[in-house]
Amino acid sequence: MKHFFTSALLCLSLASAMNAQELANFNFGGRQKPVISPEIQNDSVTFRLKADYATVVKLSGSWMPNPWGGTIDMQRGENNVWEVKIPLPEPEIYTYNFVVDGVAVNDPQNVYVQRDGTRYLPMLIVPGERTENYGEATKHGTVSHPWYHSELLGMDRRLTVYTPYGYEANPKKKYPVLYLLHGAGGDEEAWTSMGRTAQILDNLIEKGLAEPMIVVMPNGNANQAAARTLGIPEKPMQMRWDREAMAKMSEAERDLLMNGYVRSLCTEIVPFIEKNFRAIPKPASRAIAGLSMGGGHTISASVLYPELFDYICPLSAAGDATPEQLAALKKAGVKLYFLACGNTDFLFQRAEQMHAKLDDLNFPHEYFVSEGGHTWANWRLYLNTFAPKLFK
Amino acid sequence: MKHFFTSALLCLSLASAMNAQELANFNFGGRQKPVISPEIQNDSVTFRLKADYATVVKLSGSWMPNPWGGTIDMQRGENNVWEVKIPLPEPEIYTYNFVVDGVAVNDPQNVYVQRDGTRYLPMLIVPGERTENYGEATKHGTVSHPWYHSELLGMDRRLTVYTPYGYEANPKKKYPVLYLLHGAGGDEEAWTSMGRTAQILDNLIEKGLAEPMIVVMPNGNANQAAARTLGIPEKPMQMRWDREAMAKMSEAERDLLMNGYVRSLCTEIVPFIEKNFRAIPKPASRAIAGLSMGGGHTISASVLYPELFDYICPLSAAGDATPEQLAALKKAGVKLYFLACGNTDFLFQRAEQMHAKLDDLNFPHEYFVSEGGHTWANWRLYLNTFAPKLFK
Repeated sequence: MKHFFTSALLCLSLASAMNAQELANFNFGGRQKPVISPEIQNDSVTFRLKADYATVVKLSGSWMPNPWGGTIDMQRGENNVWEVKIPLPEPEIYTYNFVVDGVAVNDPQNVYVQRDGTRYLPMLIVPGERTENYGEATKHGTVSHPWYHSELLGMDRRLTVYTPYGYEANPKKKYPVLYLLHGAGGDEEAWTSMGRTAQILDNLIEKGLAEPMIVVMPNGNANQAAARTLGIPEKPMQMRWDREAMAKMSEAERDLLMNGYVRSLCTEIVPFIEKNFRAIPKPASRAIAGLSMGGGHTISASVLYPELFDYICPLSAAGDATPEQLAALKKAGVKLYFLACGNTDFLFQRAEQMHAKLDDLNFPHEYFVSEGGHTWANWRLYLNTFAPKLFK
Repeated sequence: MKHFFTSALLCLSLASAMNAQELANFNFGGRQKPVISPEIQNDSVTFRLKADYATVVKLSGSWMPNPWGGTIDMQRGENNVWEVKIPLPEPEIYTYNFVVDGVAVNDPQNVYVQRDGTRYLPMLIVPGERTENYGEATKHGTVSHPWYHSELLGMDRRLTVYTPYGYEANPKKKYPVLYLLHGAGGDEEAWTSMGRTAQILDNLIEKGLAEPMIVVMPNGNANQAAARTLGIPEKPMQMRWDREAMAKMSEAERDLLMNGYVRSLCTEIVPFIEKNFRAIPKPASRAIAGLSMGGGHTISASVLYPELFDYICPLSAAGDATPEQLAALKKAGVKLYFLACGNTDFLFQRAEQMHAKLDDLNFPHEYFVSEGGHTWANWRLYLNTFAPKLFK
């Protein structure tokens, strides 16, 4: 009995420790009304922030017409809890923050946070058909971070790899591989954090809509070993637009500068994956997709190594290829060319031109134009749309 | 040439996109003086925050005597950049935040962030002998997040697993395994984020100080499938101190409530790891360590399954064992019993009592008492201290 009482006391001590570690999760036993934020009720959502000494508190959200400037005023209420209730935006994953007397503040009540490069932003997840594959499925694949050695770039570099549910339990089964590339400013964690890759693949595979596949998400910044948050010193960034410096280079140096990462991807990462994971080492079991700068990498990889990938998906792509290169790619054989872009994207004209170029060559392709611009809302939609078309 | 010019323009567009994604990393071309924070210079560190409309800005840091209440005022300077310069604390990893008109704010200039449960806190990393194994080594192990199925707890549950550098390149080699448990309020990401497990092991192994080993970090909350940030609904938490409810239970139900997670660890996680990783399935190649609540789990696992682990390390432990249980454990054979606690820890008396109990039994053990309390500074120190003693 004494031992039991000690345990009860200990639980109280642990509650204090828990309080110190996870303030947001601690139930104050009803003595203090907890602040709930964000709170979705029917067609509205309420945001709340306790700010005792603030003069002006605003809400800024990625669903607002001008997310870099637009804000909504919040009103001070009981106990200095500031509040604003707005109509619920369309189903999607948004990010938001508060602005307290001019300074950006995260929502301390919201445990759902997205990592955008070096910033952590609270998410507003509005449920609906559009987002039904963005939450956790019942069965989960494994996300891992192995490091491969790049002779070309002169360093060990970090990868993010998704293996589907069942990979461990079926040690004889081999899988096709999607190489999924991020954009400028991103890193090897962009697709799993903002892109919801693991959730989308888990859901699509669980529903029988997509083939079980491995997804490989490298770091696309040739000067980086890993995400900047790891603190590994970067190589000085070379200036691609410095014509004078470029002119002094040998052809090999110039090629390494222009294509170093893509060459590392195709000649180092693909072999690393096919050696260390149970991957099917055939073009028909390799797909490549990438957004923005990664769309450019996708296009470059497909024309520099036309035999390597049978599935090619440039998304909101910052990149180009000549008709001759595309003709050679067509000849090498492609099972799916999925070109996607938002209709207000600043790169939309590039997508239109690529679409026209492919049409001119009678290059079979899917051209997927969505509403909106250069956003993760679109890139999640594209992944959710093209993943079911791969390896079939 | 025209193509080249287009590329140069495109780079400018990408710079805008990068700006939108990683504000903190963008160089404004010298037109605006960047705010640098924190800035370590010799024996001082300066913190800065641009806050145009704030009235009072303070700094709160985990090195301050009272981190939950103590703050230092910051002064408004040129361009509304608030600043404070303080003497550099002793080498360690600290967390801090600003307080802007009463509201906690993260440092937007600091890319080094620690995940504490559901909060993300900027880190101040003070270099020195104490922290030399907390930064990135040259050679990196792989961190992965597989899911195991728990029949006992009725769900698939997420693990964090570290495999050492060379694991992929040496497919015939088998490794010993350390099971490393978090405390109350933590989850399967606590040891890799706050505990710097991957960095500490990478450094110790690279220096030849520790044996290459696998480290398994489960989720120790029996009602959770995974970290709360994943959004998977939790099972209702049962009250261990509700004597009435406990009295109505069968013995099996009571045991599941008291020991469910420890039984899952020893009878489900250990076999899962030994099946799916190249682990040496012997007591001499199994270690268990845990902090606070996880120290309690460590003690429970060692006495409930005395044959399973030859290395046992309760750290700042919230748990206990009877002399009879410890005598049985001694008889089963233990290669290392490493008991550690801070001398101002609220659980220090428990450690002292355990030490005395082990002495009474002539149970060979190391008793490691450090300065300070119930903190990650101590738990990193303990891992860095006991890991070299394992599997030798």
